[in-house]
Amino acid sequence: EHIPFIHTRYSEKEMVKRSQEFYELLNKRRSIRFISNEQVPMEVIDNVIKAAGTAPSGAHTEPWTFVVVKDPAVKHQIREVIEEEEEINYMRRMGHRWVADLRKLRTNWIKDYLDDAPVLILIFKQVHGFTAKGKKKVHYYNEISVSIACGILLAALQNAGLVTVTTTPLNCGPRLRALLGRPAHEKLLMLLPVGYPSKEATVPHFTRKSLDQIMVTV
Amino acid sequence: EHIPFIHTRYSEKEMVKRSQEFYELLNKRRSIRFISNEQVPMEVIDNVIKAAGTAPSGAHTEPWTFVVVKDPAVKHQIREVIEEEEEINYMRRMGHRWVADLRKLRTNWIKDYLDDAPVLILIFKQVHGFTAKGKKKVHYYNEISVSIACGILLAALQNAGLVTVTTTPLNCGPRLRALLGRPAHEKLLMLLPVGYPSKEATVPHFTRKSLDQIMVTV
Ligand SMILES: Cc1cc2nc3c(=O)[nH]c(=O)nc-3n(C[C@H](O)[C@H](O)[C@H](O)COP(=O)(O)O)c2cc1C
Ligand SMILES: Cc1cc2nc3c(=O)[nH]c(=O)nc-3n(C[C@H](O)[C@H](O)[C@H](O)COP(=O)(O)O)c2cc1C
Repeated sequence: EHIPFIHTRYSEKEMVKRSQEFYELLNKRRSIRFISNEQVPMEVIDNVIKAAGTAPSGAHTEPWTFVVVKDPAVKHQIREVIEEEEEINYMRRMGHRWVADLRKLRTNWIKDYLDDAPVLILIFKQVHGFTAKGKKKVHYYNEISVSIACGILLAALQNAGLVTVTTTPLNCGPRLRALLGRPAHEKLLMLLPVGYPSKEATVPHFTRKSLDQIMVTV
Repeated sequence: EHIPFIHTRYSEKEMVKRSQEFYELLNKRRSIRFISNEQVPMEVIDNVIKAAGTAPSGAHTEPWTFVVVKDPAVKHQIREVIEEEEEINYMRRMGHRWVADLRKLRTNWIKDYLDDAPVLILIFKQVHGFTAKGKKKVHYYNEISVSIACGILLAALQNAGLVTVTTTPLNCGPRLRALLGRPAHEKLLMLLPVGYPSKEATVPHFTRKSLDQIMVTV
């Protein structure tokens, strides 16, 4: 069944202003790897995840699960899994180039933010679903859909005044999935430690590409 | 080099209000497949792409190219490529299940919006980059990074009062890449027709999962 779409239309002047302000807000976003242990309002976490859940998805499958970890003991177990695997990544699995590429970001396998951040959001993609009869239901483009939802989540966090760093804990998926008791058809896509920046938070000094480096008009 | 991070902090009350309003704004987004041929302000298109360009990316590679197509002749050529390939997808390449799953969305291989929409944005992921010496430079997680940027782009469009539908033209990548003269290391990820909804625009009537269906707290 199809229903009429109700559209909110702004004047052109308003559209320019709104789009400019949204750009300026998001352009202040940075990946923050130094997070304060101060608590954040859980209503805000609910709202940013609700916002992420409005994302489009292939054939409206909504193939995402957001696991919000507040329990300090579980956060610490997550940290242990990630630091163990990351150390192996750095020391053995990945080549020199990978280590060199990441050096300028000063990331390494010590991740205090996994204990410090009051909230960790682990985002799982559901690689398939189930029909009413329990058969596998294909989830077209599940990784793209969940990544889009994560983009919206990042925008929502920035809009709310919270910080995070997008991380993809390499080779940690299966252990973290088991730790959190998620089913086998869910795969870890991303982990976002969320909170306020710590007082001494610094960021790598770099610029972003300009519009003419990323846009081509035909 | 690392520099101090400047954070904008809101009161808890403001955070709750901002996050609630952002959710409500985005929850009004729908995929619109009936787009008016009315022109849109190009400054708004610039701003939404600038917003998308603030996305995080693996090792700050910014592996995206946004091709904005306004030329009616090129839009029409794009439509021809897509309708040709889509008809083959429907009739031959894809199974019954795919066709059945999409039937309830009433999409088919006739896509008026590709002519109607004043702007088509084709988003390419750069599967690798180049070093100063012209060697291949790995782009870690390029598809996830570009999909995150697309999520931000969709939020920016919604915030500006424009509509679109997220599309992934199956098997059309190589021909559209050639048509637009993009280099071989760029692969088509998504195509967004952008504009105002047409007066008679309808949408499939469905609900979204509720918070407790997508969020788990530990
Ligand atoms: C990765 C991805 C690919 C999609 N591909 C298509 C497509 O090719 N054609 C189409 O009409 N809709 C496509 N959609 C839109 C979905 O059908 C739509 O998001 C879903 O039905 C939910 O509806 P909503 O966006 O109105 O909330 C796609 C969405 C995503 C996220
Ligand atoms: C898909 C993806 C994976 C990332 N993985 C990591 C990671 O594992 N660890 C980390 O510290 N940063 C990670 N980042 C963050 C990037 O390094 C960061 O976005 C980039 O350097 C740009 O900085 P900015 O976010 O401050 O603009 C990742 C970003 C993306 C999009």
